[in-house]
Amino acid sequence: MRINGERLKKTITDMAQIGATPNGGVTRLALSDEDKDARDLLKRWMIETGLEIRIDDFGNLYGRRPGTDPEAGAILIGSHLDSVPAGGRFDGVVGVLASLEVLRTFKDLGIQTKRPVEMVNFTGEEGARFSPPMLGSGGITQMFSSSFIYDRVDADGVRFEDELIRIGYRGESPHRAKNVQHFVELHIEQGPILDTECVPIGAVEGIVGVSWLEVTVRGVRGHAGSTPMAMRRDALIAASVMVSAIAEVATQADKDLLLTVGKFVPRSSAPNVIPDEVTFSVDIRHYDSLIRKRGVQAVKDLLMSIGKEKGVDVSVVDLWNMEPTVFSKSLVELICEVSSFLGYPVRKIRGGIGHDAKYMNEICPSAMIFIPCVEGKSHCEDELASWEDIEKGANVLLHVVYRLAQQ
Amino acid sequence: MRINGERLKKTITDMAQIGATPNGGVTRLALSDEDKDARDLLKRWMIETGLEIRIDDFGNLYGRRPGTDPEAGAILIGSHLDSVPAGGRFDGVVGVLASLEVLRTFKDLGIQTKRPVEMVNFTGEEGARFSPPMLGSGGITQMFSSSFIYDRVDADGVRFEDELIRIGYRGESPHRAKNVQHFVELHIEQGPILDTECVPIGAVEGIVGVSWLEVTVRGVRGHAGSTPMAMRRDALIAASVMVSAIAEVATQADKDLLLTVGKFVPRSSAPNVIPDEVTFSVDIRHYDSLIRKRGVQAVKDLLMSIGKEKGVDVSVVDLWNMEPTVFSKSLVELICEVSSFLGYPVRKIRGGIGHDAKYMNEICPSAMIFIPCVEGKSHCEDELASWEDIEKGANVLLHVVYRLAQQ
Repeated sequence: MRINGERLKKTITDMAQIGATPNGGVTRLALSDEDKDARDLLKRWMIETGLEIRIDDFGNLYGRRPGTDPEAGAILIGSHLDSVPAGGRFDGVVGVLASLEVLRTFKDLGIQTKRPVEMVNFTGEEGARFSPPMLGSGGITQMFSSSFIYDRVDADGVRFEDELIRIGYRGESPHRAKNVQHFVELHIEQGPILDTECVPIGAVEGIVGVSWLEVTVRGVRGHAGSTPMAMRRDALIAASVMVSAIAEVATQADKDLLLTVGKFVPRSSAPNVIPDEVTFSVDIRHYDSLIRKRGVQAVKDLLMSIGKEKGVDVSVVDLWNMEPTVFSKSLVELICEVSSFLGYPVRKIRGGIGHDAKYMNEICPSAMIFIPCVEGKSHCEDELASWEDIEKGANVLLHVVYRLAQQ
Repeated sequence: MRINGERLKKTITDMAQIGATPNGGVTRLALSDEDKDARDLLKRWMIETGLEIRIDDFGNLYGRRPGTDPEAGAILIGSHLDSVPAGGRFDGVVGVLASLEVLRTFKDLGIQTKRPVEMVNFTGEEGARFSPPMLGSGGITQMFSSSFIYDRVDADGVRFEDELIRIGYRGESPHRAKNVQHFVELHIEQGPILDTECVPIGAVEGIVGVSWLEVTVRGVRGHAGSTPMAMRRDALIAASVMVSAIAEVATQADKDLLLTVGKFVPRSSAPNVIPDEVTFSVDIRHYDSLIRKRGVQAVKDLLMSIGKEKGVDVSVVDLWNMEPTVFSKSLVELICEVSSFLGYPVRKIRGGIGHDAKYMNEICPSAMIFIPCVEGKSHCEDELASWEDIEKGANVLLHVVYRLAQQ
């Protein structure tokens, strides 16, 4: 029993045309026109596969293949189709379309499982347009309330709920995933380990914890030619000193502590204007919750002390916190066993990035299958996974799902 | 002989409605719809004042009141109506509309001068949309070629010439100012000296030299969760270290050396993406050309050395250089003399900012009259000049122009 690699390749290639960027990536921000087009295409494919379609109140899109036991909990598989700006063709997409391929394969082979098998495309995983990330899976696992999610706004002040309605994907809350036995997500690693070691399958043991801070620095605007240096309260210089110092914290603390300033937005933007306001994000990750929390505190102390020294106002908002996740040990072992059965090298691995599986693990034992991506590059236009590895990952997913669905 | 302060106030207040921002400023970028509206309104007022209207090939808008001697060189007065984003209501506007008020006063009083008196609204003084600044006055004084000006593009890649045609202000090159005896520009100081000293009139002796650099820092994009700190080439961290270091250079070198990073644009903008490219400006000013040039070299050396240390690519473009200006000593004395005649306190002062008068001084002896602005604030929405000081400044302009036009 194997999936159809050529069909999966064509499906992924077709999907990559929606929101395609000039350099081979995609921009498909959550609830944008491109996201709508991607959903419409997926829905058509799911209907052609004979799946029962549901859309829940957060726009999560499900396709269900019933099992022989109407009482049995479902095996849920899937990921997300949204992307960061100028992101890659594989992040999220591989998991969604390999799930479709698994169900197409069941259909082709006339396989009737005991448990229902359901696929899902989660809404707003990336957090690039509507922050925080993983709003769709966070909604159905009650990590976030409906009103919290609906009131998220993008950089232009547009509300999540308004956009969800606009693109026609606001469904009903009774449509949310329920009676789920296990959730399994296939995803590219988005890091360099599998690629460096030439191992096609990673059985993911867990995911790091993450904290996001949003920092606003306020100084005083003025003209570059007429304000003596000593009289300035330049928000950009203060923010730059902060970013430099944050990078130093990372190198001095635990070597696995990751600190990133990814978003950095000065309010004004003319060469001869002294900037009065800068907003920036700080992303802090570690496997150990205590080390991460100490990192968060160290960053906050640093921001306040630099702000005082530079004479600018600093405000810090705790935008998001996610504790580390430990996936089901028996599922991790099953992934290893199935990979060996199929003749694919496999290793256990830890994830550095939040995924929908992280929240799903809160309501049912879950797991993830990683495949390599070239040089670990992700969230960029030259993100690349080989068709061979994608096919292997999809075959592991096929057999894992088959075994779980017969239990 | 005095100008009509109430009329001038109403004229400035009416103009401030075009491109008005919520907090009392204006956004009237060069060749935008707002700039067109401002020009249309000014043109209507100039026609009502009986002036002969001309528009030259850079969109500079002139209104001429003929003199009795058809051979005599003209006295040209004026400034600019364009603004920075969320700028003030007075920067440039005071000079243009006080010039209109001077000509309205001549008309009211039936004054016939020997020399023609001409007012002008220069195109694109700010450089905020189309860089470098002072394109209109730089064009007619041949600091820039026509093709250089026409091919300037804004942040969206829109060309200067296309926008000039779109708003209907591309005139003819024979319409450029010619046979000009003197140029005089009234302007707010945009610095704190006159306001601090409570002196209403500044006779401007000269203007600092300015250099603009455009710096691009290129690193490698990646995901915040999966790239070890030691393997990163983070463009934002490198750029932040550069900005911090530039601020240090300023404090260590000459105390009058001004260094500003006003524009700072990271390419990506998601909290979980390691930024791969940042572009920023450096603005460097000093009265002494040699000290300024040493400052430019110190900044360039610093950028290259930090780039090397951080493993990122750095490119630096010399975007713009402007040597210091020395205005006509006899005009400076005339401004002092007229101010004393009118009973207004006056002091000599140096400008920290480029103005159209700087380029005009290259083709005819020129000068500037400064009036105070509150706390020296400019290029911001709370830029403020008192109606009393504006009236005084306009009266000085009136008498200076009258005397020059009779010589």
